[in-house]
Amino acid sequence: MAVGNVAIPETIYAIDGIKLSATAAGVRYKDRDDLVIIEISETATSAVVTTKNTFCAAPVRVLREHFAKASPRYLVTNTGNANAGTGADGMRRAEDICAALASKAGVDTNSVLPFSTGVIGEPLNSEAVIAGLDKALANLAADNWLAAANGIRTTDTIPKLASQKVDVAGASYHVTGISKGSGMIRPNMATMLGYVTTDANIAADVLQEMLSAINEQSFNRITVDGDTSTNDCCVLIATGAASSDVIDSPEHPHYQPLYAALTDVFVRLAQLIVRDGEGATKFMAVKVTGGKTSQECCDVAYAVAHSPLVKTAFFASDANWGRILAAVGYAGIEDLDTEQVDVSLDEVKIVQGGGVAPDYTEEAGNTVMSRPEITIHIDLARGDATDTVYTCDLSYDYVKINADYRS
Amino acid sequence: MAVGNVAIPETIYAIDGIKLSATAAGVRYKDRDDLVIIEISETATSAVVTTKNTFCAAPVRVLREHFAKASPRYLVTNTGNANAGTGADGMRRAEDICAALASKAGVDTNSVLPFSTGVIGEPLNSEAVIAGLDKALANLAADNWLAAANGIRTTDTIPKLASQKVDVAGASYHVTGISKGSGMIRPNMATMLGYVTTDANIAADVLQEMLSAINEQSFNRITVDGDTSTNDCCVLIATGAASSDVIDSPEHPHYQPLYAALTDVFVRLAQLIVRDGEGATKFMAVKVTGGKTSQECCDVAYAVAHSPLVKTAFFASDANWGRILAAVGYAGIEDLDTEQVDVSLDEVKIVQGGGVAPDYTEEAGNTVMSRPEITIHIDLARGDATDTVYTCDLSYDYVKINADYRS
Repeated sequence: MAVGNVAIPETIYAIDGIKLSATAAGVRYKDRDDLVIIEISETATSAVVTTKNTFCAAPVRVLREHFAKASPRYLVTNTGNANAGTGADGMRRAEDICAALASKAGVDTNSVLPFSTGVIGEPLNSEAVIAGLDKALANLAADNWLAAANGIRTTDTIPKLASQKVDVAGASYHVTGISKGSGMIRPNMATMLGYVTTDANIAADVLQEMLSAINEQSFNRITVDGDTSTNDCCVLIATGAASSDVIDSPEHPHYQPLYAALTDVFVRLAQLIVRDGEGATKFMAVKVTGGKTSQECCDVAYAVAHSPLVKTAFFASDANWGRILAAVGYAGIEDLDTEQVDVSLDEVKIVQGGGVAPDYTEEAGNTVMSRPEITIHIDLARGDATDTVYTCDLSYDYVKINADYRS
Repeated sequence: MAVGNVAIPETIYAIDGIKLSATAAGVRYKDRDDLVIIEISETATSAVVTTKNTFCAAPVRVLREHFAKASPRYLVTNTGNANAGTGADGMRRAEDICAALASKAGVDTNSVLPFSTGVIGEPLNSEAVIAGLDKALANLAADNWLAAANGIRTTDTIPKLASQKVDVAGASYHVTGISKGSGMIRPNMATMLGYVTTDANIAADVLQEMLSAINEQSFNRITVDGDTSTNDCCVLIATGAASSDVIDSPEHPHYQPLYAALTDVFVRLAQLIVRDGEGATKFMAVKVTGGKTSQECCDVAYAVAHSPLVKTAFFASDANWGRILAAVGYAGIEDLDTEQVDVSLDEVKIVQGGGVAPDYTEEAGNTVMSRPEITIHIDLARGDATDTVYTCDLSYDYVKINADYRS
């Protein structure tokens, strides 16, 4: 059950130059969409980031090879099977899918990028994927965003979409994206797929830099269970359909407003993954201020966000701030002056100077802990750096979902 | 419910020079022993290792100060309250307890070491501890090991003891120890207390080196939930009562057999903590071979041992080896050749050359996964280093215990 605001946008802007379809191909389950194709116009630029897991899945390896050789025209995603840990056979099957789609669509095989998500270590039924391609191609349409968001779900309980319009002097841009993922979420990507598109006209190198920077503040700032997946990929596509004015540097006047809109969409798509965290009943932003570096703020935020003891305390709505302090203490800042550390939950200060805050009451703690969305603010009082990580609690249902996933 | 062999030793050897008592002092709960005193003979040598958590508890700070100034004569432990995150008041209370005990026993305050374990961030009822000291001192006896092991329990479901006899040319030594802890367990100590004693005669510097090395292979190789506690301490005491022959270097003929016996006792006490891991239904040894360094073997073993996805799969008796591969892949070995990696569960090879082993069957996987004790053997095939970490699965009861702990 997803936490807080997980609404589908009232308006989902179609992106000129992008068509999508979702098809039931029977990869693993019957009667549900499990094959999603995204068609990209020929003039678009694209950028990609992929998992840092060395056991990356076959489709990720194929994708990297293809992306190095050609600009993508089709993204093909199957759910139900991650095609990971599948060796040479898995590589061949990922290639087969790309080759079949390329042949049917009349494009180069390298311009097809494959994506897979689902169970690891079982042979992918690539025959079923290939058999579904004709129907998938026939169904391509610009307004299939919701169907596509549903089609890439695995244990996700909600479709994840974000869409924005950006008006700048002389142009009007649209940004629309979808994501999936709810477990195995951690920095350096996760069992996470993200596809974000815009009709802006952005030079390829600028687009890749934008993606890397924005990804760092969104998908690389979420954690559900600390597990980094073998299959994570995020793609940013700029079709250029809205303007012939190429955004070719950060100094371009359209760059900043577009960057802001893209960041909003990415952060929303990333937060939706945490809000839909497996078994989540609470959404927590762990905001660390007063660090010497952004890295140490991140280290502290992740130590807190990964701590099973903190996460179970939030599940129990128990303001056990001692567990937060303990996690701050093992985050690896060796010269931390613990007597300077303050911690608040939303507006309630619970720790001041490394000990319980003088005005703190259990009642105030219980009140704030009863909320579905809580900001844990940790101030280290040793510098000006800040960073924020998003996470959820650890519940019975997390264990249930992950103990039952293959059954 | 503890997993596998958690039996109390048939023979618990008393250690000449050590007396213990367990008393109900009413620190937090009524009618249970929560105050344990260990009295150490005047001629004994002692060694200590403590938590690396920078938010270390008041008693740990006091302990470090005292240990630097004097050889310990009394170890005083309360359960129910960790006296952590309690600021200056907590320091004063830890000192008060030491001063009161020192005064009653007629020793220097610095020769009393305090230990606390339990809930973090609440004021310690030091008055109750102090009020219980007379009875605790009156009850000191050499054969109170089991009572002491019970007296230091918090969420532990079993008392943890180990005891061995070592016969060497010209001497007969005994080693007896107790430990506590079942959650917040992770490298660099945990919510873990360990007291190991021997009647051997060991020079203080040699004893400290022994403790550091053996601790590294025992208490620093276990993990339940990845949380490092604020209160972890481990003490090794050599009373010297069994022999006047001082073991003053690793070359001493008694050193190796005694080192081996101490290691056995430490590993047993450490494994008992994992076997009693909160909610544990399975005990897993994660053995990594073929690494370039012991450190990278450890990194891989901990990535697997900490993965909630691996741990829930073991809880479900599901041989989801893909989750093991994924954890190996994010352990941080950037140049890992994943196509050389083999994984076995006990005698069943499940991964060969980075993919599913040719002879692997789900049936064989299910058979091995039904066992309460399983060795996960990961071979990296890139060097001669090896290391082993001990852990348990992640169950509903882990969440239940930690969501309910304060209630």
